[in-house]
Amino acid sequence: MPQTSLMMTLQFSSSGTPVNVQAKHFLIPGLGRYDHKYSPKLPSKFPKTSIFNSHQIPNPILHQPPVNQSVAAIVFGDGSESRLYPLTKRRSEGAIPIASNYRLIDAVVSNCINSNINKIYALTQFNSTSLNSHLSRAYSVASLGKEGFVEVIAAYQSPEDQGWFQGTADAIRRCLWVLEEYPVAEFLVLPGHHLYKMDYQRVIESHRNRKSDITIVASNGITKRDQDPGVGVLKINTENQVMQYSLKSNKEPVNYAVVEAYLFEGYWEDMRSIEAFYQANMECIKKLNTGYNFCDRDSPVYTIPRNLPPTVVNDAMITDSVIGDGCILNRCKIKSTVVGMRTKIRDGAIIEDSVIMGSDVYQIEDGRESSIKSTSVPIGIGENTEIRKAIVDKNARIGKNVKIINKDNVEEGDREANGYIISGRIMVVLRSAEIPDNSIL
Amino acid sequence: MPQTSLMMTLQFSSSGTPVNVQAKHFLIPGLGRYDHKYSPKLPSKFPKTSIFNSHQIPNPILHQPPVNQSVAAIVFGDGSESRLYPLTKRRSEGAIPIASNYRLIDAVVSNCINSNINKIYALTQFNSTSLNSHLSRAYSVASLGKEGFVEVIAAYQSPEDQGWFQGTADAIRRCLWVLEEYPVAEFLVLPGHHLYKMDYQRVIESHRNRKSDITIVASNGITKRDQDPGVGVLKINTENQVMQYSLKSNKEPVNYAVVEAYLFEGYWEDMRSIEAFYQANMECIKKLNTGYNFCDRDSPVYTIPRNLPPTVVNDAMITDSVIGDGCILNRCKIKSTVVGMRTKIRDGAIIEDSVIMGSDVYQIEDGRESSIKSTSVPIGIGENTEIRKAIVDKNARIGKNVKIINKDNVEEGDREANGYIISGRIMVVLRSAEIPDNSIL
Amino acid sequence: MPQTSLMMTLQFSSSGTPVNVQAKHFLIPGLGRYDHKYSPKLPSKFPKTSIFNSHQIPNPILHQPPVNQSVAAIVFGDGSESRLYPLTKRRSEGAIPIASNYRLIDAVVSNCINSNINKIYALTQFNSTSLNSHLSRAYSVASLGKEGFVEVIAAYQSPEDQGWFQGTADAIRRCLWVLEEYPVAEFLVLPGHHLYKMDYQRVIESHRNRKSDITIVASNGITKRDQDPGVGVLKINTENQVMQYSLKSNKEPVNYAVVEAYLFEGYWEDMRSIEAFYQANMECIKKLNTGYNFCDRDSPVYTIPRNLPPTVVNDAMITDSVIGDGCILNRCKIKSTVVGMRTKIRDGAIIEDSVIMGSDVYQIEDGRESSIKSTSVPIGIGENTEIRKAIVDKNARIGKNVKIINKDNVEEGDREANGYIISGRIMVVLRSAEIPDNSIL
Amino acid sequence: MPQTSLMMTLQFSSSGTPVNVQAKHFLIPGLGRYDHKYSPKLPSKFPKTSIFNSHQIPNPILHQPPVNQSVAAIVFGDGSESRLYPLTKRRSEGAIPIASNYRLIDAVVSNCINSNINKIYALTQFNSTSLNSHLSRAYSVASLGKEGFVEVIAAYQSPEDQGWFQGTADAIRRCLWVLEEYPVAEFLVLPGHHLYKMDYQRVIESHRNRKSDITIVASNGITKRDQDPGVGVLKINTENQVMQYSLKSNKEPVNYAVVEAYLFEGYWEDMRSIEAFYQANMECIKKLNTGYNFCDRDSPVYTIPRNLPPTVVNDAMITDSVIGDGCILNRCKIKSTVVGMRTKIRDGAIIEDSVIMGSDVYQIEDGRESSIKSTSVPIGIGENTEIRKAIVDKNARIGKNVKIINKDNVEEGDREANGYIISGRIMVVLRSAEIPDNSIL
Repeated sequence: MPQTSLMMTLQFSSSGTPVNVQAKHFLIPGLGRYDHKYSPKLPSKFPKTSIFNSHQIPNPILHQPPVNQSVAAIVFGDGSESRLYPLTKRRSEGAIPIASNYRLIDAVVSNCINSNINKIYALTQFNSTSLNSHLSRAYSVASLGKEGFVEVIAAYQSPEDQGWFQGTADAIRRCLWVLEEYPVAEFLVLPGHHLYKMDYQRVIESHRNRKSDITIVASNGITKRDQDPGVGVLKINTENQVMQYSLKSNKEPVNYAVVEAYLFEGYWEDMRSIEAFYQANMECIKKLNTGYNFCDRDSPVYTIPRNLPPTVVNDAMITDSVIGDGCILNRCKIKSTVVGMRTKIRDGAIIEDSVIMGSDVYQIEDGRESSIKSTSVPIGIGENTEIRKAIVDKNARIGKNVKIINKDNVEEGDREANGYIISGRIMVVLRSAEIPDNSIL
Repeated sequence: MPQTSLMMTLQFSSSGTPVNVQAKHFLIPGLGRYDHKYSPKLPSKFPKTSIFNSHQIPNPILHQPPVNQSVAAIVFGDGSESRLYPLTKRRSEGAIPIASNYRLIDAVVSNCINSNINKIYALTQFNSTSLNSHLSRAYSVASLGKEGFVEVIAAYQSPEDQGWFQGTADAIRRCLWVLEEYPVAEFLVLPGHHLYKMDYQRVIESHRNRKSDITIVASNGITKRDQDPGVGVLKINTENQVMQYSLKSNKEPVNYAVVEAYLFEGYWEDMRSIEAFYQANMECIKKLNTGYNFCDRDSPVYTIPRNLPPTVVNDAMITDSVIGDGCILNRCKIKSTVVGMRTKIRDGAIIEDSVIMGSDVYQIEDGRESSIKSTSVPIGIGENTEIRKAIVDKNARIGKNVKIINKDNVEEGDREANGYIISGRIMVVLRSAEIPDNSIL
Repeated sequence: MPQTSLMMTLQFSSSGTPVNVQAKHFLIPGLGRYDHKYSPKLPSKFPKTSIFNSHQIPNPILHQPPVNQSVAAIVFGDGSESRLYPLTKRRSEGAIPIASNYRLIDAVVSNCINSNINKIYALTQFNSTSLNSHLSRAYSVASLGKEGFVEVIAAYQSPEDQGWFQGTADAIRRCLWVLEEYPVAEFLVLPGHHLYKMDYQRVIESHRNRKSDITIVASNGITKRDQDPGVGVLKINTENQVMQYSLKSNKEPVNYAVVEAYLFEGYWEDMRSIEAFYQANMECIKKLNTGYNFCDRDSPVYTIPRNLPPTVVNDAMITDSVIGDGCILNRCKIKSTVVGMRTKIRDGAIIEDSVIMGSDVYQIEDGRESSIKSTSVPIGIGENTEIRKAIVDKNARIGKNVKIINKDNVEEGDREANGYIISGRIMVVLRSAEIPDNSIL
Repeated sequence: MPQTSLMMTLQFSSSGTPVNVQAKHFLIPGLGRYDHKYSPKLPSKFPKTSIFNSHQIPNPILHQPPVNQSVAAIVFGDGSESRLYPLTKRRSEGAIPIASNYRLIDAVVSNCINSNINKIYALTQFNSTSLNSHLSRAYSVASLGKEGFVEVIAAYQSPEDQGWFQGTADAIRRCLWVLEEYPVAEFLVLPGHHLYKMDYQRVIESHRNRKSDITIVASNGITKRDQDPGVGVLKINTENQVMQYSLKSNKEPVNYAVVEAYLFEGYWEDMRSIEAFYQANMECIKKLNTGYNFCDRDSPVYTIPRNLPPTVVNDAMITDSVIGDGCILNRCKIKSTVVGMRTKIRDGAIIEDSVIMGSDVYQIEDGRESSIKSTSVPIGIGENTEIRKAIVDKNARIGKNVKIINKDNVEEGDREANGYIISGRIMVVLRSAEIPDNSIL
């Protein structure tokens, strides 16, 4: 499902000075009653477009239906062209753990809930098992109020379609008969692995008031990481209508439908690389309000409800870090680190500038088990181990006296057979990997 | 997922007189800790087998773990070789409605719950959307008690496996890493569209006491419908060990693992044809206790909890029928019929020997809507319409003065373009089909 | 908790011609942060009031908080001065079954949900066990969406207050510290046993726009049943401000706070007598849209989700009736009757103009049980029994050849020792009562 | 509800050498079908009794019904004679927070769930609001599997009983009609505020095998704190039958029913004083396995599922402490302390040997609020504040430069008007109390 076709950069050419903004997601018009012949071809649908700022939004028109009745969100949970490998080796992008207690997709689903949009379809196909499980546990039918739901639509075979979803538009096309059950007026198409907060009600108001066919949410927060030649570019006129868009080297004029853009200003992270993911974690540590705010009472972030015991700390010095639920921290030093749920850190460990994703279960460490597998390294961080600038994926087993410090200062390196890779100088230890005692990486 | 390879007929050859029994499902040994190299090859694993009756079961061995901790069920929700078309046109077999209020898969999942097995993985791939949705709504994580779950594992792409599940064994193989989360000692492999009641705890006791590697549940209820050349046959010795099994024309000796059989006596319907499905519905009408008992307080059948208004009856003569929740029955005669949820039957209608699956939603019939689409036939059964020996799938729109009576007494007929097919003289109206006023079929 | 003090009749005296309207419930101003000294004295709080029609409501003021954040509903589940005895013998008024599948309180709670008010406190004290249980099963914390809840606040002892709630105002006063948890701007005070549909958002808009301290919802649907001397009366001036109100014979001027009224036109049933309850049931049969509409897709009525098998009908003639889920109807005639969940009606029974509440469980009728208690009458309606103009409460055991027909045409009669009473010529069989074979009542 | 009458000390006098054991709770025989005349008089029901150790339990009798069908637990949530004031000022004993993330009653309910007992009635009356709310949120009907429930039965008025529950036996008597819904064979009567782990299935096996009428669970862990003259004493013969029991100074022979005792060895805390509660918290810190183990995968402790952000730590030295979910810890030192959910500790604070219960909500600290109430102390622990050997109840507001150190070394002191009391030299700051800046207590 290469929903990356939905990611593109808009260029204001209206005033002669093109302004870079990024298209983030689409609001496509409602499909009404299901028509078997309807086949939305999103990529070829961008003739004239206009863009406007959020402060220009007029008052909502009161006789329009409330968003919780007329809008459905379609969240794409994964993309096959992920650059977040190896974090996506066994899971889709939306299922990657973030900020100790969450999964990436929680951000977008929480946006929907906080925007009173409670009809949410999650389309999944690639390594989707853990994502499907997360979504059905975190957002059970019961949890979204009257007529609300997060419905996972996994790729499937049918007599007409033996193959997998062929891109975003095909995925939506093949699910139209499902979407028919609750007729809606507008669809909100959202990538499931972006990190940002937005009141989609504002976007929908804009969409309705401008009577646009398609509204593209765009951000002008172009960072250095976004100078990606694979990202699309749009040409905009003075009324902010999109005249042309280009994806990679392929330019296409927009000449029929009314395509508007909604400009969003604020934190928005695309998660287009391991480095971006690492930075997003670091930003949520530094100060609560610069990056994405997970502790926001007004727009809370939802996830699987947990039932974990409190974190037990024997003797720890902790600075500038966040600690997930149910950790066991022995005598250790933790600095500028995200420590995930159920992480066990043993005596003498030092962890800095890292993301430790934690564990799915508590490992029972009694005599019976240790006799059986006395040689294997237990889950967690071993005694006297030192970790710096690393991402340690779930259930990893880091031995004693290990150093994960990128000792040779490698920029990029594939050591997957040894349980880790290096990406942008960041050490990434794979899920369930075992790093033997005394290793120096 | 051709789990039909799990369906075979056993032949007792022990006493010289072969006895026909049907293999219904498998109990395979637990896989313990996940081993990446493990690849269970179910079809080639049947050397010696034995079979014994349920009344021979010795006392349970008390130090063995309780089933709700050590056993996981793997339910196959669909099969690509379905003979239940067109009921499977838009849904997998497990999602076919049965007995007004249920879906086929509810029978097997309820068996698990009533047997205290609450770790249930449902593997789906083919037309799976409605099945996935049903399972996650009916059996949310919260509904199965301590550590219980029904987890849907939809087919997915991964870097190693770009293709769909290639049969039952491949599906299990590709899900082993998921099943690892809750280590279990035994797996219970179950087709999701069979209709029967069984206490799986008895099977597991037998499996443990006989120390078998694989236990096959078999039924000696061979009916005329089962004389299918495509079904497998097993040879059994005097100790009820399976010596040979044959699937279709392919015979294979069983020569390594210990394969036992567990003989089940009771109602069991494979749903291997439209006629079988039709009969199963008719049997649940006739007397409560001959077919499958949906009204059994001791082993209740679970499904999606509903919130429907009571059935409204204006003037109806109803004999030997079951009426689902929230129907609207005007002046009509209903005989020997299964009437599904939210069915609307209009004045003068006569329905006999039929299965009406009902509707997913109430259609609003106010002036506004009727003006817009005055020509279309509304959902339900029209005035003065007569239906005999038919299956009317969900959301069908049957007009006025229609006769669905198989007037030409056709045995088999494909009229799909007209909204129905004929199978074994049974008229089957397709989901959402529209039969115009005054039609005589 | 005599919340009947909240029930009163308004009299328009503005134009010289007094118009009767009924005050139905109150919207009282939000209490903001909890003040230990605050003690709302509702009955003495009606100085000037005004009343206006719903079509006069101006546009909502957009910068005001949405109702699902700023409004909490306080539902009174019971009243100690009930006139619905014996239906209230073991349950509070809100827990009385209505229309086969519901409890009375479902109507008001569904109004709240459909009005996007999802902070609901239910105050209970009198025979409250079944009501508490119903509320926590039907409206679990999870079912009301983001931050929504139905929280049951049962009467309790504390060091400061050893006694029960002393009326409505005392109940609210003693719960203020609980209500503090989710600060709200307005409270909506609602009796839990009324039957009507209302969009409370309209009331709140009116309340805000009129800047009133207290808004009273009033209905001008004064029926013959309402000519009750115990009901209050209000004097209104030309601007629809309430100048005086009288409860019973006690008149009290309204002279400080701004009290407005919101006039509601539509079906509203107070349930102030057995006859009113009976009529409300009959009205929901006659035509779907004259009484209270339980089958309304736009404003659905919620209740405990059920998992019942379909109703089984062997040979029944049914006219103008509603049939609840999971009934078993043998050869019988049913006319103008509400048949509740799990009702069992045996051969030859005739039921007319009645309300059969059904059963909480299926009684197992096997040999084992019948041998133990072969003499007792089973739950349900016995063979050849005739019932006319009766209310049969839950789990009643009506024998064979019984006639419940009010043979002596008694107006009012107390036969509680025999398992029934007569109220307004309506026969009322008590919950779990046993009427022996061949009885003629 | 003085269920303290269920607490008594058994004395073995069988061998001439009396052995002190404590009766902890009762297993009373099932009441079968509800009999209106049945009135269990628990206190006068102890004629002959026997006691035996858990290792003497014979094999379970297999034809007996499984505990999840035949046993119901009756949990008493509160007691009016609490010695845990002021922790019980606004809540009942079962609702007192323990070990950062839990409430006391979670221990007993979790015991039930882990023992496969899923029919749980919680009887409440005294300050019960927060307990009722906790139970219905933590253990919703849906969470306990097939036919499981935690049903809160709050004290209520009825025509027959206008008063509150008069003790344990009266409470059970008045609820018998409720308990009738799910007929059970045995009742397990449990105080809701004790802290221990027990597999009740063992007790029930013993109860059945000994064919006793009443089984009393007793512990021989008599500690110094138990030398309470108000606690009962039992005389036991050589067959461990109870011959006499005495409650306070009142001795009563046991002469009809068969009363057995089940001796339990292990951690058991009655919570009979503030000191006991404090020690229980301290013990859960020291080493995980000496006190009550909250981190036990085999017998997990359940509670309200939470959705909190991770704990944010800016610069903390933490030793021998447990930290609840969603705390915000600035530059501080924490030693031997239980830190509850959402606790905010500000710069320079030092906390030792204390129990900080945390907060129910995050306080928003923006300009708007601070301008409104700039003088009030915010929730949490202020800058440079020092706390030693204290219990700080929920939502307390401790100012800057405060010392809570029991400076005058007071043994017992009532300073409730100042927001705290002293009990056994432990400082107890009340719920929502405000301790002004610079206070030295």
